[in-house]
Amino acid sequence: MASVKLSADERLSKLEPMLASGWKLVENRDAIYKEFLFKNFNEAFGFMSRTALLAEKMDHHPEWFNVYNKVQVTLSTHDCNGLSNKDIKLASFMDTVAKLHIPE
Amino acid sequence: MASVKLSADERLSKLEPMLASGWKLVENRDAIYKEFLFKNFNEAFGFMSRTALLAEKMDHHPEWFNVYNKVQVTLSTHDCNGLSNKDIKLASFMDTVAKLHIPE
Repeated sequence: MASVKLSADERLSKLEPMLASGWKLVENRDAIYKEFLFKNFNEAFGFMSRTALLAEKMDHHPEWFNVYNKVQVTLSTHDCNGLSNKDIKLASFMDTVAKLHIPE
Repeated sequence: MASVKLSADERLSKLEPMLASGWKLVENRDAIYKEFLFKNFNEAFGFMSRTALLAEKMDHHPEWFNVYNKVQVTLSTHDCNGLSNKDIKLASFMDTVAKLHIPE
């Protein structure tokens, strides 16, 4: 099933809470970005591994950069060339997983 | 043990073969870069997972970007602010692991 862009209502009800939790809108592109910082590489890659399993299951993959304890993530939906419910779901999951890791 | 930069001799004997296998020197920085392309996300993240295990064991971590089947890697050694034997070891390992994956 092709993805559809978030509606105006969904942007208010679903995207706004993501922006309040630290995700930022990307300039010149309908996408969201967040930088996650962990205690070390073990935690950062653990976070990436849990995310990867869900991403693969959803067939919806992040763009992400990692070095040591830092993971920079951009989410957008190729299908609809913008933000869809898949991005909200993946972003929420990442926030939840990241909270399991306590930075020193 | 602090890392030391590759010697001139090591650059010839160890770095040159890496450059011949597709690694490139990064501009304005003593680092190497390579883009790996896989069949899909499963293979790309599998490659990252195997690399992550060795990187953690070596306490020597890559800078890398992934989206779907693509992994862009930069290697350099923080300790010595340049290329060391650790980068050669990790780069060789990544080349070996990547060869296990046959792009379509």
